[in-house]
Formats: sequence, C-alpha cells, structure tokens
Amino acid sequence: METSVRNKQVILRDYVKGIPKESDLMVVTSSDPVDLKVKPGSEEPLIDAFVPSNPISGIGVSKVIDSDDPAFTKGDLVWATGILGMIDLTAYAGFYEICSPKKGETVFVSAASGAVGQLVGEFAKLMGCYVVGSAGSKQKVDLLLNKLGFDDAFNYKEEPDLDSALKRCFPKGIDIYFENVGGKMLDAVLLNMRTSGRISVCGMISQYHLETRDRLQNLPDIIFKRIKLQGFASYDFMDRFPKFLEFVLPYIKEKKLTYVEDIVEGLDSKTVLLLLLDSSIYGQNVGKQVLKVAQE
Amino acid sequence: METSVRNKQVILRDYVKGIPKESDLMVVTSSDPVDLKVKPGSEEPLIDAFVPSNPISGIGVSKVIDSDDPAFTKGDLVWATGILGMIDLTAYAGFYEICSPKKGETVFVSAASGAVGQLVGEFAKLMGCYVVGSAGSKQKVDLLLNKLGFDDAFNYKEEPDLDSALKRCFPKGIDIYFENVGGKMLDAVLLNMRTSGRISVCGMISQYHLETRDRLQNLPDIIFKRIKLQGFASYDFMDRFPKFLEFVLPYIKEKKLTYVEDIVEGLDSKTVLLLLLDSSIYGQNVGKQVLKVAQE
Repeated sequence: METSVRNKQVILRDYVKGIPKESDLMVVTSSDPVDLKVKPGSEEPLIDAFVPSNPISGIGVSKVIDSDDPAFTKGDLVWATGILGMIDLTAYAGFYEICSPKKGETVFVSAASGAVGQLVGEFAKLMGCYVVGSAGSKQKVDLLLNKLGFDDAFNYKEEPDLDSALKRCFPKGIDIYFENVGGKMLDAVLLNMRTSGRISVCGMISQYHLETRDRLQNLPDIIFKRIKLQGFASYDFMDRFPKFLEFVLPYIKEKKLTYVEDIVEGLDSKTVLLLLLDSSIYGQNVGKQVLKVAQE
Repeated sequence: METSVRNKQVILRDYVKGIPKESDLMVVTSSDPVDLKVKPGSEEPLIDAFVPSNPISGIGVSKVIDSDDPAFTKGDLVWATGILGMIDLTAYAGFYEICSPKKGETVFVSAASGAVGQLVGEFAKLMGCYVVGSAGSKQKVDLLLNKLGFDDAFNYKEEPDLDSALKRCFPKGIDIYFENVGGKMLDAVLLNMRTSGRISVCGMISQYHLETRDRLQNLPDIIFKRIKLQGFASYDFMDRFPKFLEFVLPYIKEKKLTYVEDIVEGLDSKTVLLLLLDSSIYGQNVGKQVLKVAQE
C-alpha cells in the first residue's frame, strides 16, 4: 500500500541547440500528485513536445495509485512499451502501410539496429524481401547480421562512399527504403532507388540538430524514377492497432521475432539522456533503450 | 497525293550542359522514309531520351502516308497533342490520382502558366479548391488571374522572399502542392505545408541543369507534417485515359476549361528550341508551346 507519493521528474532546463547533454536536464522530486489525463490517442501524439522547465515525458508501464476515471482502478497496470508499443506500430505501419512491400523486393533500413529499424528488418525478412541495414558501429552491424537476420549490413562511418556501399549491397537497386536518418544517406539512396520505389520517412535524425542541413544532389530522382516519399507518425495509424496485434502476436509466440532491448536502471539525468539519445544517431545503445524506473 | 517524301529533322548535336541553345541543334532534310513503330503506350515513355546525332522527337498530329500495320491506313490522322494529349493526362493524374483533392483545400501550383500548370489550376477550381499559382513574368501572372481563374498568383522573380509570398497567399498553409520547379521553391513550400499535405512531383525544372543543386533546409518537414511527395509520369496512368476523357470532355464542350497555346510555325532549330524551353523555367511562352509543322 502506498503511504506517500514521490514524483521524481527529469526537467528540461531550456531548448537544446545541437545534441542534448546531461547538463540540459535537472532532477526534481516533489510529493504533490500529478494529474494525468487519458488521451483519445488517434488524433494526437502520445508525447507532447518537450517544453523548458517541464518534465521530459515518455511512454511506459505504470501502476494506477488513484483514479477518478472509471476505466482505471487502483493497482491496474497501464502499459505502452516493448514490442507491443508505439515503436512497433511505427515499424508495422511504416513498412506495410506505406511501402506496400512485395515478396522478393529489396529493402534498405538506416539506423537499422535502433528501436524501429530492427523490427522493420525482421518484418521485411518475414515478407520474403532482401534486407540490408546500416548502423554506426561494428557491434550494431554484428547484431543485424547475427541476431536479427539481415541479409547484409554495413557501418556507414567506415564507408568512404555511401553510393558505393549501396551499389555493393544492391547491384540491382533498392525498391523500399525505410528512412530514419536523412541527409547524405538519403541522397545516396535516391541515386540507388529503382523505378516506382517507396520511401517511408520515419525520421531524419542526422539533420535535426544541424543549422545548415546537408545539400542533396539527387532529389530530381524522385521524378526520374517516380519515387514516393511519405512522412508518417505512428499515431496516425492507431486504428490499425488491433490488426497489428493480430499480425504480430503469432510471430512473438512462435519466437519468430527477436527484439533487442538495452535496459538501464534508475530515473536520473544520465539515464534519461540515454533515452533521448536512443532516437538519435549518437545513441550508444544497441536495440531499444529502456529505462527501468522501479522493480515490483 | 504525296509524290515525294521529305523528312526534315532537327538533330541534337551533343549532350547539353545547362540550358539548351539554338547552336545545340542542327536541321537536316532527307528523302528516305522513316520507319515508325507504334508503342504499346502503357509501360514506356512516348518520347525516348534525346540522343546526340539523333532527331529530337515530339508528340503531335501526323498524317499516315503509308502503313503495313492494319490499324492505320493512308490518309489517317494520328494525334497526341492539345488538351486531350499526354500533357493533360499528366495534369489529371498528378492532381486527382496523386493529390486526392477535397473541396475547400488549398492548392499551390508552380510554373502555373505552363502546359500542365494551367490545367491543374483549372481542375482545382472545378473541384472547389483555393488555388494560387506562381510564374516568372507579369504577363503570365495576368493570364493566371484574368484568363485561367486562379484565386491568386505571384511572380516569383519579384518576390524577395518566397516564404513570405506563400504565407501571404496561404495564411493557413498549403494542402496540395503541384511541383514543377523544385529547389528553393520546394523548400519554401515545405515550410508552408499543412499536416497530411500532398506534393505531386511533376518536375524540378529549376534544378536539372545545375551542377550543384539548391540546398533545402526544410526536408524534415516531411516527417513533422507527415507529407507525401510522389514523383510520377503520365505514361504510368495510360489505363486512366478513358476515365480522363469521360471526365474532361463535358467540361470542354461546356467551355468550362480554357487552354492557352502559344503556336509557332515551321520546323527549324529556332522553333524546336522554343519547344524544348517550354518545359523549362526559361521558356518565354505563355501557355503550351505548340509547333505547327505544316498547314493542310
């Protein structure tokens, strides 16, 4: 039984220029309860934009300690994380709904060892596609090849020329690109896309923090090859959640999907920074970075 | 009755760097007949890529003088030009099929007085959209406002800041952008797109001849606003041609569609250059540039 409420919060001090660092965050603890409202979900993001002097919000597993919403009673566990969370709806919707993959097609995934990328690669393999991933360390590339079943993978930091790396992996070109990074990688991919290719734009993480963004030479390839680029957000596909569960649960039960998590413990500036960097190319994590706030 | 055959051809001397000029072309006349094959149409471009030392090809109205294909007999007129040609299927497919317009939406068309742009604007008005066009001269802007029924228009060459021009014309943002030019205009448009906006990529004419293409700052808006960009070519939509005719013929009969043509006479380097420049922002033509080879 809870005798007191402790709200430990990691606060964003101010807007961040460039890559966030630990000193941009600050931990406060109060004993005031926090009012939470349940969002309808289908029309707006689950996480609001981060605002200076406010706590960093996240998606997780929580225990209800009090509620005036009849849908929730004390002791209930409320969840939205792991392989059945929004990250995975992102991979599912971005790959199946936006890219309309067909058996035998070639698929390239950037930031492929990340939370979304690893699942896209596995979905593509289940579909009978040829899948190549890029990542930023030897350890991540090994994970793609040896644990997640990618057909090929490369460390983009060690490739002197991204175009050559893609031509080596895709001598006949790319049908589907699951875009997480943007910039020079997108430019090299455009040059290697096949006619009627599809690009699901999930992120352009290499570009957000740049004051002057990479110059792309190959945007006209969008016309020359009749390419579709589609930006999307998982919350636009909330209505597909039941279909997603029906699709994914058998694979999980049969252990045909691997999901790699990188778990750190304790809510503080350092661990929250790791969560923030997870969705960047600067993350050192391998797989989805998860923060364990408390053990029950 | 034809007593002799004269094949006047305008030859491309060599690949062109930058903008084509009259000296890149050369006129030859031979009396040998030219073998023509009828293309199936739905799978490949009607016009092949221009190859040095070969004639510049084009789409037009021709008279059959001899044929071993039973589908064509001497004296037949074979056509593929004007408002019922490929240009117009381009406008139709690019607007209706790719942009899925809805009544009341805001539509921006660049190179709006050109062959495709003028029709897209008129289709958008027929649909009940708010339509703004950009063009490169006062005369073209006047045409958009006074003859083609655009709600607003601006001369991009006289706008010190394209972002401001778009914000003035679209205070609530752009739902649909029919892209003909690319580069800085696309960058400004991305900043002004609304959530779930659609960009039909028909051309990026401002970029093709540049060795170093414009740097875009706003590509991440594709994610932030979940924008779709789709490159396309009219020959991908040949199967929609009957549907297109069914749609467009009543409007033509009721004179609800205006189509402005800029006709020049005589097949020579100068007139063919005008045709080539028609599909560029360097064209001085107002409306679709048409070349009259001969009068019957």
